[in-house]
Amino acid sequence: MHRLSSTPSFDHLATHCAEVKPISSTEFLTRQQSLAEALHSLNASAYIAEPGANAQFFGNISSSNWHLSERPLLLIIAPEVGSDAKVKPRVSMLTPSFEATRARSLSIPARDNVSFFEWPEDANPYEIAVSAFSDKKGSIFVDGSIRKFIADGLASVRPESEVVSAPLQIRSLRERKSPAELDIIRCANEVTLLAIRAVRDELRIEMRESEAQAIMTKALSSAGLSDPFVLGLFGENAALPHGSGSDRVLGREDFVLFDAGGSLYGYHSDITRTFALSESTIPSEHLELWFVVRAAQSAALEKAQNGTVTRKVDEVARTVISEAGFGKFFTHRLGHGLGLEGHEEPYLRGGSNDIIRPGHVFTDEPGVYIEGKIGVRHEDPFYISPDGTAVLLTAGVGGQAKSPWRP
Amino acid sequence: MHRLSSTPSFDHLATHCAEVKPISSTEFLTRQQSLAEALHSLNASAYIAEPGANAQFFGNISSSNWHLSERPLLLIIAPEVGSDAKVKPRVSMLTPSFEATRARSLSIPARDNVSFFEWPEDANPYEIAVSAFSDKKGSIFVDGSIRKFIADGLASVRPESEVVSAPLQIRSLRERKSPAELDIIRCANEVTLLAIRAVRDELRIEMRESEAQAIMTKALSSAGLSDPFVLGLFGENAALPHGSGSDRVLGREDFVLFDAGGSLYGYHSDITRTFALSESTIPSEHLELWFVVRAAQSAALEKAQNGTVTRKVDEVARTVISEAGFGKFFTHRLGHGLGLEGHEEPYLRGGSNDIIRPGHVFTDEPGVYIEGKIGVRHEDPFYISPDGTAVLLTAGVGGQAKSPWRP
Repeated sequence: MHRLSSTPSFDHLATHCAEVKPISSTEFLTRQQSLAEALHSLNASAYIAEPGANAQFFGNISSSNWHLSERPLLLIIAPEVGSDAKVKPRVSMLTPSFEATRARSLSIPARDNVSFFEWPEDANPYEIAVSAFSDKKGSIFVDGSIRKFIADGLASVRPESEVVSAPLQIRSLRERKSPAELDIIRCANEVTLLAIRAVRDELRIEMRESEAQAIMTKALSSAGLSDPFVLGLFGENAALPHGSGSDRVLGREDFVLFDAGGSLYGYHSDITRTFALSESTIPSEHLELWFVVRAAQSAALEKAQNGTVTRKVDEVARTVISEAGFGKFFTHRLGHGLGLEGHEEPYLRGGSNDIIRPGHVFTDEPGVYIEGKIGVRHEDPFYISPDGTAVLLTAGVGGQAKSPWRP
Repeated sequence: MHRLSSTPSFDHLATHCAEVKPISSTEFLTRQQSLAEALHSLNASAYIAEPGANAQFFGNISSSNWHLSERPLLLIIAPEVGSDAKVKPRVSMLTPSFEATRARSLSIPARDNVSFFEWPEDANPYEIAVSAFSDKKGSIFVDGSIRKFIADGLASVRPESEVVSAPLQIRSLRERKSPAELDIIRCANEVTLLAIRAVRDELRIEMRESEAQAIMTKALSSAGLSDPFVLGLFGENAALPHGSGSDRVLGREDFVLFDAGGSLYGYHSDITRTFALSESTIPSEHLELWFVVRAAQSAALEKAQNGTVTRKVDEVARTVISEAGFGKFFTHRLGHGLGLEGHEEPYLRGGSNDIIRPGHVFTDEPGVYIEGKIGVRHEDPFYISPDGTAVLLTAGVGGQAKSPWRP
């Protein structure tokens, strides 16, 4: 209790995103319309998702709105051609009958009413699910994260249809962010970076990792972010990219690495800074490493643009680090998509041939990890603007770290 | 703070399961051996699971040991025929390379060493996964809860094999519990029932649901259970089987319904009691309902035995309630399997044709839910003994509720 009460207030962070709005109902209807048109053009009969990021994107149903269980609850969107020959989305929910009251209380935007298909406990839920769409022959596209037994269940009642993970034309609807989504993601990341900088001012030599993490978590919560996550690692503990499990004391020669984020209206932030305190005396070879990783981060940012193949962006960052002699210590991919999931498609990694397009959001997070010695990572997300260039989502608050003392 | 400090101590519950041991390494090796023999007899080349209940059963890797992410971490068990013509399990793990240190720190029982297959970020993890087993033609059996993109990935690199959810012969290894598993499940359920009874003594008319839930949660934690869950519902709020969202005050004419549980060494408890306080004055039609549901619970218990079809057990309970005139208010299945998952296969429900076998554990939980008025449910788990009869797992602490005042 002493520790937390002695930490400062981070209330000044609370207003940073006050002007940012959640996704509007209108935008949900636009997404559903785009989905219906894509399904129609691909001769698919429906798109089906369990609660999770895709159901959240198309129907405002996240896994925190509805806990996954063995009983399927499914969002089903089917294309319907009206008498005016226009394609429209038909939005349905499959719900266990005895949970119908709770399911109907979910707030699902739709132009027309949402149709609820209830399955009694003694029925086959999949037979009832496929009654939600009239086309019997087209493919059934499912969220790639759906559990296999649900895909199996759908296939068993519709053997003439293929049940397949939704293709890129569907996935890209969520991968490529709208201006409203970018506003949310931008602000969440800005305030995360502001929080890291504010927490740096509170750190002291001899402090424990667990104390630093608690302060950082408090700052993220004060900033209004939900589900805050914090990796706070000192010295050689940072050499394990996802943490060591020990609770180290901060020494004078140690870097501090914070990898932190949270969510705002469902959209995630993800920022990493590796820095020194003003009273630190960092060994010069560690300072050198800091600047090598920083150069790799910039090289990647320059490479990324509309039309670039994702692996090429990973490659330029890796080349910078390899040429400095640390290639084998850059053990992970360069970055990932960022949105309704903390890590999402597409990825900036070797072997990946996705094409970068306007609206894509990526983290740019090269790192060097020498076990037993040191870990350095810098992470800023960027998006691809309508003109095809990469723009830092942290630009409004100063962008990339300037030096080990100016994160 | 006042409320919690005024609640009594439940420390007497803490020792109830002191003698119960976690699953031994030897038992894990037996499971792996049985799996290898089943795979061999079914001409399958391997069994593959993500962290979760099945990976926990075969390899001690639960979803709390390893958080699911977009990067596959897989338990792979393959049958190998030795020079002595005996089938043995080969246990392997697929891990992201940069997480290998953390993956190797997982405690995975195996007769021989566990083989770790590491996939670098620029590789196809599925190509590396299938290199963990030599047979190229047999089926690949996957955990039915695996995410579809992982099954898709495996199928893409082994088009000559079918990638299918594991059949009953594999699933039954986990469905049918060993004596050691039954000891854990029994004790977890006993102490949950003891906790409900102890909490009843602390409830008062005019208390809020949220207060009752907090006391119940404290009791479960004091009992040493992990991940406690509590539904605590008063009066007509109990008519929604999974809760109402309001925070009602307890009236003199209200039943209290607790549905509560937690886990012990990964195995779950699940007990429901509907009861009156000694100072309550419950309307006689509600008391009548209590005994109708109680009779249904007993009828099911008598019906369940080795060889019975699961839906028949649901049916006898439903008949009791229907003949009393409340059939349409029994809106859910009778029960579910209970073990490493809180709800697991097989299920006691209409339409289900699974055959009950020794070692199966089921909840027996009929209920009547009249929205706006009342909900009554009684839930005790039972197992099928080696002689084929159903034995209550709460028998050691008095078994089923005796009356609304003796839960």
